[in-house]
Amino acid sequence: MALSISHRCQNIAPSMTLQIDARAKEMAASGMNVIGFGAGEPDFPTPKHICDAAREALDLGMTKYTPVPGTMELRMAIYRKMQRDHNLTYSPQEIIVSNGAKHSIFTVLQTIIDPGDEVLIPTPCWVSYPELVRMAGGVPIMIPTNEENRFIPTNEDIAARVSRRTKAIIITSPSNPNGSVWSRDQLQYVGNLAVAHPFYIISDEIYEKLLYDGRKHLSIAQLGEQIKQQTFLINGVSKAYSMTGWRIGYCCAPRHEIAAMTAFQSQATSNANSIAQHAAAAALDGDQSCVDEMVSHFQHRRDVMVDGINAIGGISCLKPEGAFYVMMNVRSLIGKSYNGRKIEGTLDFAEMLLTDKQVAVVPGVAFEAEGFCRLSYAISEEKITEGLNRIDSFISHLV
Amino acid sequence: MALSISHRCQNIAPSMTLQIDARAKEMAASGMNVIGFGAGEPDFPTPKHICDAAREALDLGMTKYTPVPGTMELRMAIYRKMQRDHNLTYSPQEIIVSNGAKHSIFTVLQTIIDPGDEVLIPTPCWVSYPELVRMAGGVPIMIPTNEENRFIPTNEDIAARVSRRTKAIIITSPSNPNGSVWSRDQLQYVGNLAVAHPFYIISDEIYEKLLYDGRKHLSIAQLGEQIKQQTFLINGVSKAYSMTGWRIGYCCAPRHEIAAMTAFQSQATSNANSIAQHAAAAALDGDQSCVDEMVSHFQHRRDVMVDGINAIGGISCLKPEGAFYVMMNVRSLIGKSYNGRKIEGTLDFAEMLLTDKQVAVVPGVAFEAEGFCRLSYAISEEKITEGLNRIDSFISHLV
Repeated sequence: MALSISHRCQNIAPSMTLQIDARAKEMAASGMNVIGFGAGEPDFPTPKHICDAAREALDLGMTKYTPVPGTMELRMAIYRKMQRDHNLTYSPQEIIVSNGAKHSIFTVLQTIIDPGDEVLIPTPCWVSYPELVRMAGGVPIMIPTNEENRFIPTNEDIAARVSRRTKAIIITSPSNPNGSVWSRDQLQYVGNLAVAHPFYIISDEIYEKLLYDGRKHLSIAQLGEQIKQQTFLINGVSKAYSMTGWRIGYCCAPRHEIAAMTAFQSQATSNANSIAQHAAAAALDGDQSCVDEMVSHFQHRRDVMVDGINAIGGISCLKPEGAFYVMMNVRSLIGKSYNGRKIEGTLDFAEMLLTDKQVAVVPGVAFEAEGFCRLSYAISEEKITEGLNRIDSFISHLV
Repeated sequence: MALSISHRCQNIAPSMTLQIDARAKEMAASGMNVIGFGAGEPDFPTPKHICDAAREALDLGMTKYTPVPGTMELRMAIYRKMQRDHNLTYSPQEIIVSNGAKHSIFTVLQTIIDPGDEVLIPTPCWVSYPELVRMAGGVPIMIPTNEENRFIPTNEDIAARVSRRTKAIIITSPSNPNGSVWSRDQLQYVGNLAVAHPFYIISDEIYEKLLYDGRKHLSIAQLGEQIKQQTFLINGVSKAYSMTGWRIGYCCAPRHEIAAMTAFQSQATSNANSIAQHAAAAALDGDQSCVDEMVSHFQHRRDVMVDGINAIGGISCLKPEGAFYVMMNVRSLIGKSYNGRKIEGTLDFAEMLLTDKQVAVVPGVAFEAEGFCRLSYAISEEKITEGLNRIDSFISHLV
């Protein structure tokens, strides 16, 4: 038969955020002064005590295979974190460690989705969710939202999309790309709906620590024992401890589901990096002041970013409650022209801005949010100010 | 709909080798003096200069996302390794780095297999191959071999299993679990067959460095440009540099196929651990005497193991040419009884041996090789001798 790529893979779009980021990095490497609002990672170094734990792992020879779902050391650290932060009890048999939170979500979907199963996804959503659902043979069912309701779907809009094929819903709070945080009532509605139907809840809580103005995180798994029994709680150390390159994520769920995920992962990838597992345990068990410090930086930058955007004519944004992204509303600019070229959509806007002003933003199409661009404030205040000045200059040339 | 595990996952057997290894480790942890012949990893520490490179990565702050297919540094090190060792040219665009060689094979299969596509697998085979094929929706087509032809299939047996649905063949030389090495003629036959049909070749070369009696490795990709164009060459640093816990594998293939794998991996897991990538580059670029030293240890242990087994009545084994496993023939013991319990197959044999003599071996059923057990000699000479003494004692009690 022909040498051909599987249908599964012919249709995968590579992550658009990673692509934009890669192009911006290439331009920067070639000597250009690029302002990258595309970044999906904190710009802080991994805290020293966590790097020291990695050095200790090397000294101790922790370079062998670990159990597939993770070392007992790290799973116990996750157990303690869940108790401490959320008053949730997950035994080591209810925890699996993987190569990043994205990998956990991938494995969850492979573990529960049969061809044709539907997964509800509020939009704007993280670029990878619909692809991950499709890669498992599932059908992503988008739940549209709007800026007026802070990008959180109404109860009616959620209920209207539940069908007999609904297998799961993906909840992200705090949200990438919106920065929105779901209220207790909104989470409770989803939890009750999932129990009544029933369907699974995939709760992506990777931005949990990045909350502003004194907010505290609430996990949907805290809202009832049966809700917890149907929830895959996804988290990791990448965003909270600036450990993106280390690739340590995890999933907490009932024992039966974790066993199935472990069987899948045992064949697909085995354990996550042994040294990073020891470092991740140190991150979770150690002094948390590094997190507080990072959050206070992000909160300040958020304010600079939000005030800056809203001071520019033609664009605007909400003030996000968490994560490190804003959704910049550029609807009023679509249809205008720059140097004789018409801006047909946010992809055009982002391309022209990158080419002409060396400012990288992610077009909303990547997030099912045409009319918006995502800007990350995981870069320095100076860069934020400089980048917004360039955007202002770009917009002032539109006719 | 019901809260249920996907059909894909309901049928996955967790890796039996990892299970046996885990049970042996549990028994050892509880204070028992277990001899573990189940291990699939070198017992040597990761060489110091490689650990030092990891420390350097930490010092340099290499803790951020890297490109999905791997850092340019590591891909260039792989490029040089392929030139140096095999006279094969793969550009960085023809290389993808993943979380271990198993993960590379997983991604290859997801990238080329549509439901119903057939993948040829000579048996006895590594436990994960058939599962990985099934997880991609494919159909593993086993090519049986026997001890008389050193567990390498005849040309006729290969050709007889090619059909219009054949999408790929998996070749493993040196082989896990056999320790066999394919000759140039045998590889050339498979290469020509693949070109004529055409189908892909997945060449798992993870044990490439572990060759004995002065043998040199030959990759099937070296046997012709068109063969190379159809080959996914899989390798990694786990076995050659005793880096199993680090999880760095890689795949070399044509640009189009690597692009498709990269798209899949960008959504499923992103990059492999950034620190381990820097260490892996140091392993490939650095002094190779650590490999020679390890190989000479393994060769000596192999001789102890093979001579020891063949000195025990009722069991026997071939002398392997590579890797660190022997296939111990226990056919003559099946049907006998131990303490009144009949040995119905190698699973019984392995269980009784572990329970009664605290010796862990992997039953052949795990490798589609009933009648044999796999024993690893990646343990010390003292342990090999002690383990074989216990096996001798076990067998002497059979009636």
